[in-house]
Amino acid sequence: MPKIVDHQVRREEIAEALWRVVRRDGVGAATVRSIAAEAGWSPSALRHYFSTQAELLAFAMEHVVTRVRARIETTDFQGPVRVAVRRLLEELLPMDAERRAEAEVWLRLTTRAQGDPTATDWLRRANDGTGEVAAIVVGVLAAEGELAGHRDPGFEAARLHALIDGLAIHVLTRPESMPPERMSALLAAHLEDLAT
Amino acid sequence: MPKIVDHQVRREEIAEALWRVVRRDGVGAATVRSIAAEAGWSPSALRHYFSTQAELLAFAMEHVVTRVRARIETTDFQGPVRVAVRRLLEELLPMDAERRAEAEVWLRLTTRAQGDPTATDWLRRANDGTGEVAAIVVGVLAAEGELAGHRDPGFEAARLHALIDGLAIHVLTRPESMPPERMSALLAAHLEDLAT
Repeated sequence: MPKIVDHQVRREEIAEALWRVVRRDGVGAATVRSIAAEAGWSPSALRHYFSTQAELLAFAMEHVVTRVRARIETTDFQGPVRVAVRRLLEELLPMDAERRAEAEVWLRLTTRAQGDPTATDWLRRANDGTGEVAAIVVGVLAAEGELAGHRDPGFEAARLHALIDGLAIHVLTRPESMPPERMSALLAAHLEDLAT
Repeated sequence: MPKIVDHQVRREEIAEALWRVVRRDGVGAATVRSIAAEAGWSPSALRHYFSTQAELLAFAMEHVVTRVRARIETTDFQGPVRVAVRRLLEELLPMDAERRAEAEVWLRLTTRAQGDPTATDWLRRANDGTGEVAAIVVGVLAAEGELAGHRDPGFEAARLHALIDGLAIHVLTRPESMPPERMSALLAAHLEDLAT
């Protein structure tokens, strides 16, 4: 089925061009026009893949979800359980320029999604993904005896998820108050609390 | 100085019209045109007060900060300290339609502020305000013996601030996963943890 393969290859080409623009100029600079220029396509050819800014952001979010999933799948989670799950959570957080750009896509989509089903759908997938990782972390801690008996796993997963999103926002919008090392320390302290 | 009084009265008139639009149609519907129509002004007269969407959002945020401050100043914080500080924090959170509209302004400004000094300034004031409330809460808990001795107040204020912003985002974007009562319960559990 050469046509489908072709379509997939082209989507990857666009995703790479889009990511170069986002990394270099910020997510605000990613438009059909700028991505077409980056990929060496005509804007009208690109509009075959997404015609609105919301669809473009949804496409970027899809790309981010793929990246994060690939990183999580290939990371080596050896070592003490609490360190391992912190490292897992840090794959979702703006710890460096790459992950910062990913978080910016999420934050931008969060406010732009309203009313657009494609964008809303990818925002939901991204948020559900983070929620799942938070639930997995709490589940692993429980299995390893690192979740105190009086704590409800679902409740703690929801609190952890909220903390993760809040930390991401602080790194993005108040970087002076939340350097990555501080975020990492806050996360470690939070995980430690769950054991008591 | 009648001119200054006049200017102030007009700003309040605009703020009220803006708030009616935000409450009725959402923050996305608040444009120079829609607010002018609501206030019975001409769009050009309104552009004397704000000419860009970012300035309009900054103006809305200024209004939200004033509202929250007034509520906090007039609230009665009698009762057990932990309940009182939770109530204080809930004044910042989307617990009902009014506060939800306020939080929407904040979230919208968070992604739109980039590059616009007026908008960035009001976003910073709003965020610093939340950070201050978080610091006050931790300070009150410490003074009342409700902050465990091993806990650093600045560190806990930063964690609480991140949790507040994360919870606000979840109520706004995943309301099915975070009804106000659940947010309130998560906040209560978090404050309880600080004592141990």
